[in-house]
Amino acid sequence: MKDLTIIHRLAETIETRKKFKADNSYVAKLLCGGRDEILKKITEETAEVLLASKDGDKLHITREMADLWFHCMILLAHHGLGPDDVLDELKKREGISGIDEKASRITG
Amino acid sequence: MKDLTIIHRLAETIETRKKFKADNSYVAKLLCGGRDEILKKITEETAEVLLASKDGDKLHITREMADLWFHCMILLAHHGLGPDDVLDELKKREGISGIDEKASRITG
Amino acid sequence: MKDLTIIHRLAETIETRKKFKADNSYVAKLLCGGRDEILKKITEETAEVLLASKDGDKLHITREMADLWFHCMILLAHHGLGPDDVLDELKKREGISGIDEKASRITG
Amino acid sequence: MKDLTIIHRLAETIETRKKFKADNSYVAKLLCGGRDEILKKITEETAEVLLASKDGDKLHITREMADLWFHCMILLAHHGLGPDDVLDELKKREGISGIDEKASRITG
Repeated sequence: MKDLTIIHRLAETIETRKKFKADNSYVAKLLCGGRDEILKKITEETAEVLLASKDGDKLHITREMADLWFHCMILLAHHGLGPDDVLDELKKREGISGIDEKASRITG
Repeated sequence: MKDLTIIHRLAETIETRKKFKADNSYVAKLLCGGRDEILKKITEETAEVLLASKDGDKLHITREMADLWFHCMILLAHHGLGPDDVLDELKKREGISGIDEKASRITG
Repeated sequence: MKDLTIIHRLAETIETRKKFKADNSYVAKLLCGGRDEILKKITEETAEVLLASKDGDKLHITREMADLWFHCMILLAHHGLGPDDVLDELKKREGISGIDEKASRITG
Repeated sequence: MKDLTIIHRLAETIETRKKFKADNSYVAKLLCGGRDEILKKITEETAEVLLASKDGDKLHITREMADLWFHCMILLAHHGLGPDDVLDELKKREGISGIDEKASRITG
Protein backbone atom coordinates (compact mmCIF):
# COMPACT_ATOMS: atom_id res chain seq x y z
CA MET A 1 0.00 0.00 0.00
CA LYS A 2 1.36 3.32 -1.15
CA ASP A 3 1.77 6.41 1.00
CA LEU A 4 -1.09 8.66 -0.03
CA THR A 5 -0.42 11.52 2.34
CA ILE A 6 0.87 13.69 -0.48
CA ILE A 7 -2.74 14.70 -1.10
CA HIS A 8 -3.07 15.91 2.48
CA ARG A 9 0.27 17.68 2.48
CA LEU A 10 -0.75 19.39 -0.75
CA ALA A 11 -4.08 20.42 0.77
CA GLU A 12 -2.28 21.88 3.79
CA THR A 13 0.10 23.85 1.64
CA ILE A 14 -2.82 25.28 -0.34
CA GLU A 15 -4.59 26.20 2.91
CA THR A 16 -1.48 27.99 4.15
CA ARG A 17 -1.21 29.92 0.89
CA LYS A 18 -4.89 30.80 1.21
CA LYS A 19 -4.38 32.31 4.64
CA PHE A 20 -1.42 34.44 3.58
CA LYS A 21 -2.72 35.79 0.32
CA ALA A 22 -0.12 38.49 0.32
CA ASP A 23 2.61 36.05 -0.59
CA ASN A 24 3.82 35.73 -4.10
CA SER A 25 3.16 32.04 -4.70
CA TYR A 26 1.31 30.65 -7.72
CA VAL A 27 -1.44 29.27 -5.48
CA ALA A 28 -1.91 32.56 -3.63
CA LYS A 29 -2.13 34.47 -6.90
CA LEU A 30 -4.68 32.03 -8.30
CA LEU A 31 -6.79 32.16 -5.13
CA CYS A 32 -6.67 35.98 -5.27
CA GLY A 33 -7.58 35.99 -8.95
CA GLY A 34 -10.89 34.52 -7.90
CA ARG A 35 -13.11 31.62 -8.79
CA ASP A 36 -13.36 32.26 -12.54
CA GLU A 37 -9.58 32.20 -12.92
CA ILE A 38 -9.39 28.85 -11.14
CA LEU A 39 -12.23 27.47 -13.28
CA LYS A 40 -10.49 28.57 -16.47
CA LYS A 41 -7.32 26.78 -15.32
CA ILE A 42 -9.29 23.59 -14.60
CA THR A 43 -10.79 23.72 -18.09
CA GLU A 44 -7.36 24.27 -19.63
CA GLU A 45 -5.88 21.35 -17.71
CA THR A 46 -8.76 19.12 -18.81
CA ALA A 47 -8.03 20.06 -22.43
CA GLU A 48 -4.37 19.20 -21.85
CA VAL A 49 -5.40 15.80 -20.48
CA LEU A 50 -7.48 15.21 -23.62
CA LEU A 51 -4.67 16.18 -25.96
CA ALA A 52 -2.12 14.08 -24.04
CA SER A 53 -4.46 11.09 -23.99
CA LYS A 54 -4.98 11.33 -27.76
CA ASP A 55 -1.18 11.44 -28.21
CA GLY A 56 -0.88 8.39 -25.94
CA ASP A 57 2.34 9.37 -24.12
CA LYS A 58 1.99 7.97 -20.58
CA LEU A 59 4.39 10.39 -18.92
CA HIS A 60 2.64 13.34 -20.51
CA ILE A 61 -0.77 12.02 -19.46
CA THR A 62 0.46 11.54 -15.88
CA ARG A 63 1.79 15.10 -15.71
CA GLU A 64 -1.32 16.70 -17.14
CA MET A 65 -3.49 14.66 -14.77
CA ALA A 66 -1.33 15.86 -11.85
CA ASP A 67 -1.89 19.45 -13.02
CA LEU A 68 -5.64 18.84 -13.23
CA TRP A 69 -5.87 17.31 -9.73
CA PHE A 70 -3.71 20.08 -8.31
CA HIS A 71 -6.03 22.78 -9.68
CA CYS A 72 -9.08 20.81 -8.52
CA MET A 73 -7.67 21.03 -5.01
CA ILE A 74 -7.23 24.78 -5.35
CA LEU A 75 -10.89 25.07 -6.37
CA LEU A 76 -11.92 22.94 -3.37
CA ALA A 77 -9.89 25.26 -1.09
CA HIS A 78 -11.57 28.29 -2.68
CA HIS A 79 -14.94 26.84 -1.63
CA GLY A 80 -13.74 25.92 1.87
CA LEU A 81 -13.63 22.25 0.87
CA GLY A 82 -10.78 19.76 0.78
CA PRO A 83 -9.86 16.42 -0.75
CA ASP A 84 -11.42 14.55 2.20
CA ASP A 85 -14.85 15.83 1.22
CA VAL A 86 -14.43 14.30 -2.22
CA LEU A 87 -12.92 11.08 -0.84
CA ASP A 88 -15.80 10.81 1.65
CA GLU A 89 -18.25 11.19 -1.20
CA LEU A 90 -16.52 8.41 -3.15
CA LYS A 91 -16.52 6.24 -0.02
CA LYS A 92 -20.20 6.86 0.62
CA ARG A 93 -21.08 5.68 -2.87
CA GLU A 94 -18.99 2.57 -2.37
CA GLY A 95 -20.55 1.88 1.00
CA ILE A 96 -24.16 2.16 -0.01
CA SER A 97 -24.36 0.43 -3.28
CA GLY A 98 -21.12 -0.57 -4.90
CA ILE A 99 -19.17 1.66 -7.20
CA ASP A 100 -20.97 0.68 -10.35
CA GLU A 101 -24.44 1.26 -9.10
CA LYS A 102 -23.69 4.82 -8.11
CA ALA A 103 -21.75 5.18 -11.28
CA SER A 104 -24.94 4.45 -13.15
CA ARG A 105 -26.50 7.26 -11.11
CA ILE A 106 -23.84 9.54 -12.58
CA THR A 107 -25.02 8.89 -16.08
CA GLY A 108 -28.72 8.73 -15.25
CA MET B 1 -5.22 11.72 9.35
CA LYS B 2 -8.01 10.42 7.20
CA ASP B 3 -8.16 6.98 5.62
CA LEU B 4 -7.28 7.53 1.99
CA THR B 5 -7.43 3.97 0.83
CA ILE B 6 -10.72 4.60 -0.96
CA ILE B 7 -8.65 5.76 -3.93
CA HIS B 8 -6.83 2.47 -4.06
CA ARG B 9 -9.95 0.38 -3.55
CA LEU B 10 -11.54 2.34 -6.39
CA ALA B 11 -8.52 1.74 -8.60
CA GLU B 12 -8.69 -1.97 -7.87
CA THR B 13 -12.36 -2.14 -8.70
CA ILE B 14 -11.73 -0.39 -12.00
CA GLU B 15 -8.89 -2.80 -12.79
CA THR B 16 -11.17 -5.76 -12.09
CA ARG B 17 -13.83 -4.34 -14.38
CA LYS B 18 -11.16 -3.80 -17.02
CA LYS B 19 -10.16 -7.45 -16.92
CA PHE B 20 -13.71 -8.73 -17.25
CA LYS B 21 -14.99 -6.46 -19.95
CA ALA B 22 -17.87 -8.76 -20.63
CA ASP B 23 -19.62 -7.72 -17.45
CA ASN B 24 -22.39 -5.21 -17.53
CA SER B 25 -20.98 -2.58 -15.19
CA TYR B 26 -20.79 1.14 -15.99
CA VAL B 27 -16.99 1.04 -15.81
CA ALA B 28 -16.70 -1.97 -18.11
CA LYS B 29 -19.01 -0.35 -20.65
CA LEU B 30 -17.03 2.88 -20.57
CA LEU B 31 -13.71 1.05 -20.95
CA CYS B 32 -15.16 -0.90 -23.90
CA GLY B 33 -16.52 2.29 -25.46
CA GLY B 34 -12.93 3.36 -25.86
CA ARG B 35 -10.77 6.34 -25.09
CA ASP B 36 -12.89 9.00 -26.81
CA GLU B 37 -15.94 8.04 -24.77
CA ILE B 38 -13.96 8.37 -21.54
CA LEU B 39 -12.54 11.72 -22.66
CA LYS B 40 -16.01 13.02 -23.46
CA LYS B 41 -17.17 12.02 -19.97
CA ILE B 42 -14.20 13.82 -18.37
CA THR B 43 -15.05 16.96 -20.32
CA GLU B 44 -18.69 16.70 -19.28
CA GLU B 45 -17.76 16.26 -15.62
CA THR B 46 -15.44 19.27 -15.82
CA ALA B 47 -18.33 21.34 -17.18
CA GLU B 48 -20.49 20.11 -14.29
CA VAL B 49 -17.79 21.21 -11.83
CA LEU B 50 -17.77 24.66 -13.44
CA LEU B 51 -21.54 25.01 -13.30
CA ALA B 52 -21.69 23.77 -9.69
CA SER B 53 -18.89 26.12 -8.65
CA LYS B 54 -20.68 29.09 -10.22
CA ASP B 55 -23.83 28.11 -8.31
CA GLY B 56 -21.77 27.84 -5.12
CA ASP B 57 -23.53 24.82 -3.56
CA LYS B 58 -20.82 22.93 -1.64
CA LEU B 59 -22.53 19.54 -1.69
CA HIS B 60 -23.09 19.81 -5.44
CA ILE B 61 -19.45 20.83 -6.01
CA THR B 62 -18.23 17.88 -3.94
CA ARG B 63 -20.35 15.42 -5.90
CA GLU B 64 -19.32 16.74 -9.29
CA MET B 65 -15.68 16.70 -8.23
CA ALA B 66 -16.08 13.07 -7.13
CA ASP B 67 -17.53 12.28 -10.56
CA LEU B 68 -14.60 14.03 -12.25
CA TRP B 69 -11.95 12.19 -10.19
CA PHE B 70 -13.73 8.89 -10.73
CA HIS B 71 -13.65 9.31 -14.51
CA CYS B 72 -10.03 10.47 -14.36
CA MET B 73 -9.22 7.15 -12.73
CA ILE B 74 -11.00 5.28 -15.51
CA LEU B 75 -8.89 7.16 -18.07
CA LEU B 76 -5.73 6.30 -16.14
CA ALA B 77 -6.76 2.62 -16.14
CA HIS B 78 -7.39 2.82 -19.89
CA HIS B 79 -3.77 3.90 -20.34
CA GLY B 80 -2.41 1.26 -17.96
CA LEU B 81 -1.82 3.94 -15.33
CA GLY B 82 -3.19 4.36 -11.82
CA PRO B 83 -3.63 7.01 -9.14
CA ASP B 84 -0.16 6.22 -7.71
CA ASP B 85 1.46 7.47 -10.90
CA VAL B 86 -0.27 10.83 -10.47
CA LEU B 87 0.44 10.95 -6.72
CA ASP B 88 4.11 10.12 -7.39
CA GLU B 89 4.25 12.97 -9.89
CA LEU B 90 2.78 15.37 -7.31
CA LYS B 91 5.24 14.06 -4.72
CA LYS B 92 8.18 14.49 -7.07
CA ARG B 93 7.32 18.12 -7.65
CA GLU B 94 7.06 18.66 -3.93
CA GLY B 95 10.35 16.92 -3.31
CA ILE B 96 12.42 18.75 -5.85
CA SER B 97 11.33 22.28 -5.58
CA GLY B 98 8.33 22.97 -3.42
CA ILE B 99 4.80 22.94 -4.72
CA ASP B 100 4.75 26.55 -5.85
CA GLU B 101 7.88 26.44 -7.86
CA LYS B 102 6.69 23.57 -9.96
CA ALA B 103 3.32 25.19 -10.06
CA SER B 104 4.94 28.15 -11.79
CA ARG B 105 6.27 25.61 -14.29
CA ILE B 106 2.67 24.69 -15.02
CA THR B 107 1.82 28.18 -16.11
CA GLY B 108 5.15 28.92 -17.76
CA MET C 1 -19.71 34.84 -52.70
CA LYS C 2 -21.60 32.08 -50.95
CA ASP C 3 -25.15 32.35 -49.70
CA LEU C 4 -24.84 32.81 -45.97
CA THR C 5 -28.50 33.08 -45.13
CA ILE C 6 -28.52 29.60 -43.64
CA ILE C 7 -27.38 31.20 -40.38
CA HIS C 8 -30.39 33.49 -40.37
CA ARG C 9 -32.82 30.75 -41.36
CA LEU C 10 -31.41 28.65 -38.54
CA ALA C 11 -31.80 31.53 -36.07
CA GLU C 12 -35.41 31.99 -37.15
CA THR C 13 -36.18 28.31 -36.71
CA ILE C 14 -34.68 28.40 -33.22
CA GLU C 15 -36.75 31.50 -32.37
CA THR C 16 -39.91 29.76 -33.54
CA ARG C 17 -39.12 26.72 -31.41
CA LYS C 18 -38.46 29.04 -28.48
CA LYS C 19 -41.92 30.60 -28.80
CA PHE C 20 -43.73 27.27 -28.94
CA LYS C 21 -41.95 25.44 -26.19
CA ALA C 22 -44.69 22.89 -26.01
CA ASP C 23 -43.58 21.27 -29.24
CA ASN C 24 -41.51 18.16 -29.21
CA SER C 25 -38.48 19.35 -31.16
CA TYR C 26 -34.89 18.91 -30.02
CA VAL C 27 -34.41 22.68 -29.83
CA ALA C 28 -37.56 23.22 -27.78
CA LYS C 29 -36.56 20.51 -25.35
CA LEU C 30 -33.09 21.96 -24.95
CA LEU C 31 -34.45 25.48 -24.41
CA CYS C 32 -36.88 24.08 -21.80
CA GLY C 33 -34.08 22.14 -20.10
CA GLY C 34 -32.58 25.50 -19.26
CA ARG C 35 -29.24 27.22 -19.55
CA ASP C 36 -27.10 24.58 -17.84
CA GLU C 37 -28.28 21.89 -20.25
CA ILE C 38 -27.35 24.07 -23.22
CA LEU C 39 -23.95 24.87 -21.68
CA LYS C 40 -23.24 21.18 -21.13
CA LYS C 41 -24.06 20.49 -24.78
CA ILE C 42 -21.70 23.28 -25.91
CA THR C 43 -18.91 21.81 -23.79
CA GLU C 44 -19.58 18.35 -25.22
CA GLU C 45 -19.52 19.65 -28.78
CA THR C 46 -16.25 21.45 -28.11
CA ALA C 47 -14.76 18.18 -26.86
CA GLU C 48 -15.98 16.48 -30.04
CA VAL C 49 -14.29 19.18 -32.12
CA LEU C 50 -11.03 18.55 -30.23
CA LEU C 51 -11.21 14.79 -30.72
CA ALA C 52 -12.10 15.15 -34.41
CA SER C 53 -9.29 17.64 -34.96
CA LYS C 54 -6.76 15.28 -33.33
CA ASP C 55 -8.00 12.49 -35.63
CA GLY C 56 -7.65 14.84 -38.60
CA ASP C 57 -10.71 13.69 -40.59
CA LYS C 58 -12.00 16.81 -42.38
CA LEU C 59 -15.59 15.63 -42.77
CA HIS C 60 -15.77 14.72 -39.10
CA ILE C 61 -14.30 18.10 -38.08
CA THR C 62 -16.82 19.92 -40.28
CA ARG C 63 -19.74 18.03 -38.75
CA GLU C 64 -18.64 18.57 -35.17
CA MET C 65 -18.05 22.25 -35.86
CA ALA C 66 -21.57 22.49 -37.32
CA ASP C 67 -22.90 20.89 -34.11
CA LEU C 68 -20.94 23.39 -32.01
CA TRP C 69 -22.16 26.44 -33.95
CA PHE C 70 -25.72 25.13 -33.86
CA HIS C 71 -25.67 24.82 -30.07
CA CYS C 72 -23.99 28.23 -29.77
CA MET C 73 -27.00 29.68 -31.60
CA ILE C 74 -29.37 27.96 -29.17
CA LEU C 75 -27.47 29.54 -26.27
CA LEU C 76 -27.67 32.94 -27.95
CA ALA C 77 -31.45 32.48 -28.36
CA HIS C 78 -31.71 31.51 -24.69
CA HIS C 79 -30.18 34.88 -23.79
CA GLY C 80 -32.35 36.81 -26.25
CA LEU C 81 -29.37 37.23 -28.56
CA GLY C 82 -28.78 36.10 -32.13
CA PRO C 83 -25.97 35.51 -34.61
CA ASP C 84 -26.11 39.15 -35.75
CA ASP C 85 -24.97 40.29 -32.32
CA VAL C 86 -21.88 38.13 -32.64
CA LEU C 87 -21.29 39.12 -36.26
CA ASP C 88 -21.64 42.80 -35.31
CA GLU C 89 -19.07 42.31 -32.59
CA LEU C 90 -16.66 40.72 -35.08
CA LYS C 91 -17.34 43.57 -37.52
CA LYS C 92 -16.74 46.21 -34.87
CA ARG C 93 -13.35 44.74 -34.06
CA GLU C 94 -12.47 44.73 -37.73
CA GLY C 95 -13.69 48.28 -38.19
CA ILE C 96 -11.82 49.86 -35.33
CA SER C 97 -8.46 48.27 -35.42
CA GLY C 98 -8.04 45.37 -37.79
CA ILE C 99 -8.69 41.81 -36.83
CA ASP C 100 -5.26 41.14 -35.42
CA GLU C 101 -5.12 44.07 -33.10
CA LYS C 102 -8.33 43.12 -31.41
CA ALA C 103 -7.24 39.55 -31.49
CA SER C 104 -4.30 40.57 -29.36
CA ARG C 105 -6.87 42.08 -27.00
CA ILE C 106 -8.34 38.57 -26.70
CA THR C 107 -5.14 37.18 -25.36
CA GLY C 108 -4.15 40.26 -23.36
CA MET D 1 -31.41 40.95 -43.86
CA LYS D 2 -28.07 41.71 -42.32
CA ASP D 3 -24.77 41.80 -44.15
CA LEU D 4 -23.05 38.54 -43.24
CA THR D 5 -19.93 38.98 -45.31
CA ILE D 6 -17.90 39.68 -42.19
CA ILE D 7 -17.47 35.91 -41.85
CA HIS D 8 -15.98 35.69 -45.31
CA ARG D 9 -13.76 38.74 -44.84
CA LEU D 10 -12.54 37.20 -41.60
CA ALA D 11 -11.85 33.88 -43.35
CA GLU D 12 -9.86 35.70 -46.05
CA THR D 13 -7.81 37.56 -43.48
CA ILE D 14 -7.00 34.31 -41.70
CA GLU D 15 -6.01 32.69 -45.01
CA THR D 16 -3.69 35.61 -45.77
CA ARG D 17 -2.08 35.30 -42.36
CA LYS D 18 -1.71 31.57 -42.95
CA LYS D 19 0.20 32.17 -46.18
CA PHE D 20 2.61 34.66 -44.64
CA LYS D 21 3.42 32.90 -41.43
CA ALA D 22 6.46 35.06 -40.95
CA ASP D 23 4.35 38.03 -39.98
CA ASN D 24 3.85 38.97 -36.39
CA SER D 25 0.06 38.83 -36.18
CA TYR D 26 -1.87 36.96 -33.50
CA VAL D 27 -3.39 34.64 -36.12
CA ALA D 28 -0.03 33.82 -37.72
CA LYS D 29 1.50 33.05 -34.33
CA LEU D 30 -1.41 30.79 -33.41
CA LEU D 31 -1.25 28.96 -36.75
CA CYS D 32 2.50 28.49 -36.27
CA GLY D 33 2.00 27.27 -32.71
CA GLY D 34 0.21 24.29 -34.20
CA ARG D 35 -3.05 22.48 -33.78
CA ASP D 36 -2.83 21.83 -30.03
CA GLU D 37 -2.39 25.53 -29.29
CA ILE D 38 -5.50 26.37 -31.33
CA LEU D 39 -7.47 23.59 -29.61
CA LYS D 40 -6.46 24.89 -26.18
CA LYS D 41 -7.65 28.37 -27.15
CA ILE D 42 -11.01 26.97 -28.34
CA THR D 43 -11.43 25.16 -25.02
CA GLU D 44 -10.55 28.34 -23.11
CA GLU D 45 -13.03 30.39 -25.11
CA THR D 46 -15.74 27.80 -24.50
CA ALA D 47 -15.07 28.07 -20.76
CA GLU D 48 -15.35 31.87 -21.04
CA VAL D 49 -18.71 31.47 -22.80
CA LEU D 50 -19.90 29.23 -19.93
CA LEU D 51 -18.77 31.67 -17.26
CA ALA D 52 -20.28 34.65 -19.09
CA SER D 53 -23.56 32.81 -19.61
CA LYS D 54 -23.77 31.94 -15.90
CA ASP D 55 -23.17 35.63 -15.09
CA GLY D 56 -25.90 36.58 -17.56
CA ASP D 57 -24.29 39.75 -18.96
CA LYS D 58 -25.37 39.92 -22.62
CA LEU D 59 -22.50 42.07 -23.84
CA HIS D 60 -19.99 39.76 -22.18
CA ILE D 61 -21.67 36.68 -23.68
CA THR D 62 -21.61 38.27 -27.14
CA ARG D 63 -17.90 39.07 -26.88
CA GLU D 64 -16.91 35.63 -25.64
CA MET D 65 -18.99 34.01 -28.37
CA ALA D 66 -17.21 36.19 -30.95
CA ASP D 67 -13.88 35.01 -29.52
CA LEU D 68 -15.03 31.40 -29.75
CA TRP D 69 -16.22 31.68 -33.36
CA PHE D 70 -13.04 33.53 -34.32
CA HIS D 71 -10.86 30.73 -32.95
CA CYS D 72 -13.10 28.11 -34.58
CA MET D 73 -12.33 29.77 -37.91
CA ILE D 74 -8.61 29.60 -37.20
CA LEU D 75 -8.95 25.86 -36.54
CA LEU D 76 -10.89 25.43 -39.77
CA ALA D 77 -8.11 27.27 -41.64
CA HIS D 78 -5.52 25.02 -39.98
CA HIS D 79 -7.32 22.02 -41.48
CA GLY D 80 -7.70 23.63 -44.91
CA LEU D 81 -11.39 24.19 -44.22
CA GLY D 82 -13.45 27.37 -44.07
CA PRO D 83 -16.76 28.66 -42.75
CA ASP D 84 -18.53 27.66 -45.98
CA ASP D 85 -17.86 24.00 -45.23
CA VAL D 86 -19.65 24.36 -41.91
CA LEU D 87 -22.46 26.43 -43.40
CA ASP D 88 -22.90 23.87 -46.18
CA GLU D 89 -23.15 21.13 -43.55
CA LEU D 90 -25.83 23.10 -41.70
CA LYS D 91 -27.65 23.70 -45.00
CA LYS D 92 -27.50 20.05 -45.94
CA ARG D 93 -29.13 19.05 -42.67
CA GLU D 94 -31.84 21.61 -43.22
CA GLY D 95 -32.36 20.50 -46.79
CA ILE D 96 -32.69 16.81 -46.12
CA SER D 97 -34.76 16.60 -43.06
CA GLY D 98 -35.46 19.81 -41.22
CA ILE D 99 -33.23 21.20 -38.54
CA ASP D 100 -34.79 19.30 -35.67
CA GLU D 101 -34.58 15.89 -37.20
CA LYS D 102 -30.87 16.18 -37.79
CA ALA D 103 -30.58 17.76 -34.43
CA SER D 104 -31.95 14.58 -32.95
CA ARG D 105 -29.20 12.80 -34.86
CA ILE D 106 -26.71 14.93 -32.92
CA THR D 107 -27.89 13.56 -29.63
CA GLY D 108 -28.54 10.04 -30.86
